[in-house]
Amino acid sequence: MFKEQLKEKQQLIEKELHRILEVEENPQIIYEAMKYSVFAGGKRLRPVLCLSSCELFEGDIKKALPVACAIELIHTYSLIHDDLPAMDNDDLRRGKPTNHKVYGEAIAILAGDGLLNLAFEVLIRHALENPHDYQRILKATNEIARASGCKGMIGGQVVDILSQNTKLTYEELKFMHEHKTGALIEASVCAGAYIAGAIEEDIHALREYASLIGLAFQIKDDILDVIGEEEKLGKKVGSDREKGKVTFVNIFGLKKSQQMVVELTQKAIEILDRFGEKALFLKELSNYLIERVN
Amino acid sequence: MFKEQLKEKQQLIEKELHRILEVEENPQIIYEAMKYSVFAGGKRLRPVLCLSSCELFEGDIKKALPVACAIELIHTYSLIHDDLPAMDNDDLRRGKPTNHKVYGEAIAILAGDGLLNLAFEVLIRHALENPHDYQRILKATNEIARASGCKGMIGGQVVDILSQNTKLTYEELKFMHEHKTGALIEASVCAGAYIAGAIEEDIHALREYASLIGLAFQIKDDILDVIGEEEKLGKKVGSDREKGKVTFVNIFGLKKSQQMVVELTQKAIEILDRFGEKALFLKELSNYLIERVN
Repeated sequence: MFKEQLKEKQQLIEKELHRILEVEENPQIIYEAMKYSVFAGGKRLRPVLCLSSCELFEGDIKKALPVACAIELIHTYSLIHDDLPAMDNDDLRRGKPTNHKVYGEAIAILAGDGLLNLAFEVLIRHALENPHDYQRILKATNEIARASGCKGMIGGQVVDILSQNTKLTYEELKFMHEHKTGALIEASVCAGAYIAGAIEEDIHALREYASLIGLAFQIKDDILDVIGEEEKLGKKVGSDREKGKVTFVNIFGLKKSQQMVVELTQKAIEILDRFGEKALFLKELSNYLIERVN
Repeated sequence: MFKEQLKEKQQLIEKELHRILEVEENPQIIYEAMKYSVFAGGKRLRPVLCLSSCELFEGDIKKALPVACAIELIHTYSLIHDDLPAMDNDDLRRGKPTNHKVYGEAIAILAGDGLLNLAFEVLIRHALENPHDYQRILKATNEIARASGCKGMIGGQVVDILSQNTKLTYEELKFMHEHKTGALIEASVCAGAYIAGAIEEDIHALREYASLIGLAFQIKDDILDVIGEEEKLGKKVGSDREKGKVTFVNIFGLKKSQQMVVELTQKAIEILDRFGEKALFLKELSNYLIERVN
């Protein structure tokens, strides 16, 4: 049941992403480069979270769909720029050559820029086309814009870059992940709730939920970098260690890290109790995230 | 009179840009890098155009100010990314070291990303805070988002990148400039008009005006690259030729190019006749643009 519901949401998202990126304009290479990374096999976690939290409040999933896809465009732009030689200098992502390996650095930078811009184009157009819901859509957009900017994702990436030759403390590591990964996960969950017209109190609870699964998600990533299977991960195992990155695993050890993932997820799921049965899918999704192998 | 009015607008814009960028958050280096390029001595042409076109329709200039500044943030982001080693590889901009020369490539890429994101943050917040004018603000934002995306500025930059080892035809050169520079100039003028609540017919006329001065502006740039004074330009004269770039000057020659600038500007000014005396400032601004030395 859960797996089918998940697949259904993922398919909705794929279809909408294709619709958004189906552009027959010149210069074609930039659309090709953007599509290359958007359709490189992402799990669509963030947009699924957005749709699920909209459903939690019985909101109209069609209204959340463009918002969910805009978030995925922003997520993809951040991966393209993070992989650049001047940043993490990664050659592989999800088992495929990274964007700049295929299209060159200049086009990769511009493809990232294009996706960030496109995300806002989609959101603004959505607000303009739905005057009755414009305030909900703007609130969701505001949430996303904050999360993807310097107070969120970009701020986290800056700390990551600056830390490449120093050893982060646990507090700094947490700051980095809360900003680099956590902020957009939080925004995904809250944006869906805004679209559904949820009240501030519920959004506050969801924000806490999202912050917990965001952290669990990141610790799980660090664990997979140590014990994952390369084929499933689509990248080399041990790349964090190779780059000298501080991870949860090398601060707390493998066993304690695995325990943290379980505890954080349990705590997150407990927060969802207040929403009763309607939260079943989100609960299952939270467990799915910690059982993943890539 | 014109000079004072221009200065007054520029000061309003400076003050608002400082307000927007006055952020005391971690990591500070990213705010520093963004401010470095935003306050590197730009002429604020685009935001001045935006305010002026708002005034043309007796709109509230305070409502146009955040929009005008968002445009300047987008313009600055595009300069930072254009200057990167993977793109134009420029060391100097307005007489100062380019962003990546001071902060390194990684931070420069992120500072550009941060400014693009910040522009939309400013616009969305502005729409949320002004529910009575939200539709005007969203229309302006939509105009800007289109102009800065792949159908505008980014598309133009892609053609510029692709053309580095080929010889562009006049049509291709025109396409490049219409997208790379023209689109955002057009959006600046139209956004101001949207904020003032101008009717579509007037916006249509302004769009034509902006497209003419946008082209004149670019040809003037090409001329200055040949006959400008390095000290005033803040960069090396002849850099286009050095990079093997096709320019209006090497297609049409210096004399014909100068003539084109005058003719395009005259044609643009004629379009403004329909607005009577209120268009005086915009007319003088148009002439100011072709008389500039940097």
